[in-house]
Amino acid sequence: MQLLFLGTGAGIPSKQRNTSALALKLLEERGTVWLFDCGEATQHQILHTTLKPRKIEKIFITHLHGDHIFGLPGLLGSRSFQGGDEPLEIYGPTGIKEFVETFLRISRTHLTYDIVFHEQLEGVIFEDGTMRVEAALLDHVIPSHGFRIIQKPLPPKLNMERATSLGVPKGPLLAKLKGGEAVVLEDGTTIKSEDVTEASQPGFVVAILGDTRYCEAAVALSRDADVVVHEATFDAETQKLAKDYGHSTILDAAKTASRAGAKTLIANHISARFLPDDEKILIAQVKDVHPRTWIARDFAEYEWHQQAHKLKKKMENHR
Amino acid sequence: MQLLFLGTGAGIPSKQRNTSALALKLLEERGTVWLFDCGEATQHQILHTTLKPRKIEKIFITHLHGDHIFGLPGLLGSRSFQGGDEPLEIYGPTGIKEFVETFLRISRTHLTYDIVFHEQLEGVIFEDGTMRVEAALLDHVIPSHGFRIIQKPLPPKLNMERATSLGVPKGPLLAKLKGGEAVVLEDGTTIKSEDVTEASQPGFVVAILGDTRYCEAAVALSRDADVVVHEATFDAETQKLAKDYGHSTILDAAKTASRAGAKTLIANHISARFLPDDEKILIAQVKDVHPRTWIARDFAEYEWHQQAHKLKKKMENHR
Ligand SMILES: [Zn+2]
Ligand SMILES: [Zn+2]
Repeated sequence: MQLLFLGTGAGIPSKQRNTSALALKLLEERGTVWLFDCGEATQHQILHTTLKPRKIEKIFITHLHGDHIFGLPGLLGSRSFQGGDEPLEIYGPTGIKEFVETFLRISRTHLTYDIVFHEQLEGVIFEDGTMRVEAALLDHVIPSHGFRIIQKPLPPKLNMERATSLGVPKGPLLAKLKGGEAVVLEDGTTIKSEDVTEASQPGFVVAILGDTRYCEAAVALSRDADVVVHEATFDAETQKLAKDYGHSTILDAAKTASRAGAKTLIANHISARFLPDDEKILIAQVKDVHPRTWIARDFAEYEWHQQAHKLKKKMENHR
Repeated sequence: MQLLFLGTGAGIPSKQRNTSALALKLLEERGTVWLFDCGEATQHQILHTTLKPRKIEKIFITHLHGDHIFGLPGLLGSRSFQGGDEPLEIYGPTGIKEFVETFLRISRTHLTYDIVFHEQLEGVIFEDGTMRVEAALLDHVIPSHGFRIIQKPLPPKLNMERATSLGVPKGPLLAKLKGGEAVVLEDGTTIKSEDVTEASQPGFVVAILGDTRYCEAAVALSRDADVVVHEATFDAETQKLAKDYGHSTILDAAKTASRAGAKTLIANHISARFLPDDEKILIAQVKDVHPRTWIARDFAEYEWHQQAHKLKKKMENHR
């Protein structure tokens, strides 16, 4: 899994930061990419990466402000143009379906794939054998949501060397052992699953939160997460402004991550008022509250290392 | 007047060319800018120029395909965010009003200015003391229009040096002379308007055409124009494809300009199949039909020289 930030700005695009979009790359896990928010020119940002629009399986929209959705029309069209024919699932607040259907109709855009809309963003909104996504309402000036993406524990891995050395023949017995069962060999020996499998590996927990004031729902979604992506439109010195406009300071974000016991915080949705040099100041404001805090930048990528159970910076600005 | 190309590609954005947008800068003439089409990320392109969104007075939309309108939501919001409070006039096919009103409502975008919509695009669609705009339907797969922008002849300019040397005192007499009247001085001398004014200067005629097959309406709009901006999605070797998809080849564009007696042709809406090196080939295909043909590039700017009555290249790629 990698988190690739495509747009990390707030409100309007600047030369440094585009409006919101974040790709959760699940290429190893499920061969697809999940996109969180889709500000204008997200497809342009994608042109500078190795992402393929047709690989996007799900799009999650935190809220309907323009800086989070105005890239949808173009991206949906390009996904079609570039040969996407797998259905696309869009999860967003009520109104997202009307928005998409209106621009498709008026621009006479005929997609090569179907869209399934999910406008109910409370509780478990997606679950299959390997992943679960939970959503909750945050506290912004319009309904804005956060998502908790949970990778289920990975099934035990078969250690083929050990199985062979213990005399387990290739075939159905191996499958049983992998599935957790014990088996009896022809010579009467009993082999337990744990004799030939590595321990089951815990999955990751990622919290991706939309625009919000400091709130309990954000803490709950971030509980023990490996990484929390939280907006930080303001800095610690403009706390009142943040509250008035329904936003967070970087200190709010750090408090949320700290109270939730989250490992890493990535501060996102950074105002154009802050220049690259100001990032040190922002980081300094939270070093006592949540030391492992990073400031997102466009094209910054973070990689999940399953064995180490840790998120690491991959590279920055591969534009 | 300057023509500043903000997006010169076809269909979807590429690294070289964004989707359609063209600024007709009328800063000297009326202190404003007129925008023709507004593909996604037009506001991002504008970030790399000296254009101010609040200076945009009118937006003309040739047709409702996504590559010509998906930048409107973001641009309208940013025009508001950046302090635009002058009303904005939008001229576009039926449907443009619903498109704009829907995304404003769903994204809860509250603009600081009013929008006046004009969905009737036949004949004279705008006229004031200095400018006139005519529109006509072209021949595309959906209703697509062309615009003929006419600058009215500039009023005669007063030659102050001559007026003084002939003994005309400062004051109301000068205004009469400028307005074309003759006046009698205190000493009985009659001064005619033409004695103290430069000849009235003809204005420019610019034709900006939407996506279209070769058609008579395009020729009519381009009649004797100083410059025609015409799509050239295909080259002369893919004539049949062009027709099937409702588009033109560069040869179609050149024939239109030539039959219309237009001075300069700027070929626009260039497919991503053509790389910068292919431009020579495209130009070669039309050199016998319309020699003064240029291929538009993103950020290329062309300047109108009123005295010389001629359009000249200003610079390329000031990104
Ligand atoms: Zn936002
Ligand atoms: Zn087009």
